[in-house]
Amino acid sequence: MKDVNVGICGLGTVGGGTFNVLKRNADQIAGRAGCNIRISRIASRTAREDLELGDITFTTDIFDVVNDPDVDIVVELIGGYETARELVMAAINNGKHVVTANKALIAVHGNEIFEAAEAKGVIVAFEAGVAGGIPVIKAVREGLAGNRIDWIAGIINGTGNFILTEMRAGREFADVLKEAQALGYAEADPTFDVEGIDAAHKLTILASTGFGVPLQFEKAYTEGISGITPYDITHAEGLGYRIKHLGIARRRDSGIELRVHPTLVPKDNLIAQVDGVLNAVLVDGDAVGQTMYYGPGAGDEATASAVIADLVDVARAVANNSTQRVPYLGFSNDAMADLPVLPMEEIQSAYYLRIQALDHPGVLAKVASILSEQGINIESIVQKESELEDGRIPVIILTHTVQERQVNLAIEELEALADVDGRVVRIRAENFS
Amino acid sequence: MKDVNVGICGLGTVGGGTFNVLKRNADQIAGRAGCNIRISRIASRTAREDLELGDITFTTDIFDVVNDPDVDIVVELIGGYETARELVMAAINNGKHVVTANKALIAVHGNEIFEAAEAKGVIVAFEAGVAGGIPVIKAVREGLAGNRIDWIAGIINGTGNFILTEMRAGREFADVLKEAQALGYAEADPTFDVEGIDAAHKLTILASTGFGVPLQFEKAYTEGISGITPYDITHAEGLGYRIKHLGIARRRDSGIELRVHPTLVPKDNLIAQVDGVLNAVLVDGDAVGQTMYYGPGAGDEATASAVIADLVDVARAVANNSTQRVPYLGFSNDAMADLPVLPMEEIQSAYYLRIQALDHPGVLAKVASILSEQGINIESIVQKESELEDGRIPVIILTHTVQERQVNLAIEELEALADVDGRVVRIRAENFS
Repeated sequence: MKDVNVGICGLGTVGGGTFNVLKRNADQIAGRAGCNIRISRIASRTAREDLELGDITFTTDIFDVVNDPDVDIVVELIGGYETARELVMAAINNGKHVVTANKALIAVHGNEIFEAAEAKGVIVAFEAGVAGGIPVIKAVREGLAGNRIDWIAGIINGTGNFILTEMRAGREFADVLKEAQALGYAEADPTFDVEGIDAAHKLTILASTGFGVPLQFEKAYTEGISGITPYDITHAEGLGYRIKHLGIARRRDSGIELRVHPTLVPKDNLIAQVDGVLNAVLVDGDAVGQTMYYGPGAGDEATASAVIADLVDVARAVANNSTQRVPYLGFSNDAMADLPVLPMEEIQSAYYLRIQALDHPGVLAKVASILSEQGINIESIVQKESELEDGRIPVIILTHTVQERQVNLAIEELEALADVDGRVVRIRAENFS
Repeated sequence: MKDVNVGICGLGTVGGGTFNVLKRNADQIAGRAGCNIRISRIASRTAREDLELGDITFTTDIFDVVNDPDVDIVVELIGGYETARELVMAAINNGKHVVTANKALIAVHGNEIFEAAEAKGVIVAFEAGVAGGIPVIKAVREGLAGNRIDWIAGIINGTGNFILTEMRAGREFADVLKEAQALGYAEADPTFDVEGIDAAHKLTILASTGFGVPLQFEKAYTEGISGITPYDITHAEGLGYRIKHLGIARRRDSGIELRVHPTLVPKDNLIAQVDGVLNAVLVDGDAVGQTMYYGPGAGDEATASAVIADLVDVARAVANNSTQRVPYLGFSNDAMADLPVLPMEEIQSAYYLRIQALDHPGVLAKVASILSEQGINIESIVQKESELEDGRIPVIILTHTVQERQVNLAIEELEALADVDGRVVRIRAENFS
């Protein structure tokens, strides 16, 4: 049986997991790939005393791997943008295939990387970059290839989902964030996770794979979960909704919606039941309807599972000297769509609005009138008892689907009312229909 | 762009759906496949006036399609065993690739078909045979290729799931079955669906794809849902469980469990939330842990989605003159495992047992003693008030995991007790751990 040589760059969590699984399941993986996937070289800044590297060449310079003529496939697991970009471009220029778990790299530099790879005829695979061990890139790119994909909505950041799950018990964001940091789910600087940047990287890749548009991370809208309160979580539950931090990509005639933000989802939708650090991606295709992909979005061996699935695909091509390629983003270059990413004002959504009204007569009529003038239809409106006896009455409104511009205008007018105190709380809502 | 010619055999529900989706999404599908997937010939016993076939050659003899030298890929959508087998074997012998939605054919004749296809170097793809539009074969065969798959558990028959879902409202099996037949979810003869035969076909294919064992449908255990009562559904709910008709395949050191039967699953497990005609497959791999795949398991365009995904894969190989192949069942021939399918006595499961005890002193002690002697540990035991005032007291027991042989012996002894009236109700339970 042929050997296909793999060089691993980066021996952290995912690198160690990949090493261990490749070793433990070597026979079975060879049986699937039709060749031996042999780690011939590993580069990492720091050694891992816990791993038995045997006769594998170990170096601290990652560029040794991409310059090693024996290496067929470079596995990039160092993370980050610039060095990873240089490494991957050097690997491609040396005619090597690349497997990466680096979502930031693909979301930001993917177009350039794929162009270079296409010119060299090499594969760049990135299943591990999106939703960890869930093979959702393969599902969208190949498994749903017959469909016009209409939208994709995913819980694609486990840290944020853990925090929102725990907040359902009435805990504050800051309190749960501390726990998530203690458990190792959140970084010391949690910005990437809780502000939606990590999710936007993944969503950018999913959207391009689904719709055949170039990667446009810089145009993705991101809104984090740090402003979500247990108060709104409770009231959303009362309306039959759960708040999830979703990445949503939707194809419209005029362009693509690409947005990450807290979202009310119906409690009886399966995605609302996905709790803790787990991930799930709901995909709507015109032929199949809705399918969902669920599982662990992070973790050493879960992510390694996706890295190795890519390795098997690539190794099979290497072992067969095959030039047959699934296009990087699912579509051949001349079939890419040039749909623009829509500005947020042009997206369409339902909305949860919470207003602190002063207890004046006629305030509800004024609120309803403003919404009506902006063409916003109300699904439900609830006036709560004031909890604070300060004369402020919470009014909670759920709207039908409307363009965001109208809601921005309405909020501006609502906040200008003498009867409304402070800012209007606005959380988008989806019914997945 | 190259044309790849497809001949469709069978123009029923799935055939019509495949025709419509291939036509509607032709540009996009070509953009993904890198070639035009062109229907050059269709054969069907009856014409479909609602479809505009244009310049496609239409015949009533399906063998015209497999004998047409212009056809590259034969799509088998006629269903059934024998004619489908002859058709597919003839297609293979003529050097044509095959895409089929026929789970019965693959489960029963797959080993022979794959052997012939291997000898001819042609692809046989069958994504549409398992769980309709959900790309679960691709997920298990490719997306989880790094894993040792430990078990697969699926709701893979929508008819049965619809019936069990409706029965939660207290309705009887026969009553809901009639509704399912009126809605077109169930056939006039519902045996295939409600007795688990259809699910066993799909499970057989999933198990072989996951574990790398030959297809052994004849050794699968099937138990239907016609004996399930609203009474047990309610009591299972009280214990925190929902009853689902699951196909379960599990790898043990001594062999493979391959079984379809009603199963208690914890209500808080995502698969318990899958209601109505929808399907879901939960897969446990040693690296990734648990992932789940959810969506429509039937329907014209949902199934067509899977047929076309296979067509894109095969057409890409045809257009590239590529001999690169993913093995039919995921593993190359010399890597297939020869694990036997275990007899039911050797499977391990938890059990829900319901006994009608007569109101004698000491009956609980006798029951507990019998279970203990068979080495069966009790998770919970509930003695209910008698609802019938006939002196019979329902005793409901949930056991820990144990070998089925012990449970059979215990049931025999329990039914022999003078204090126990009638048969012991036994439903298996899974905790997915």
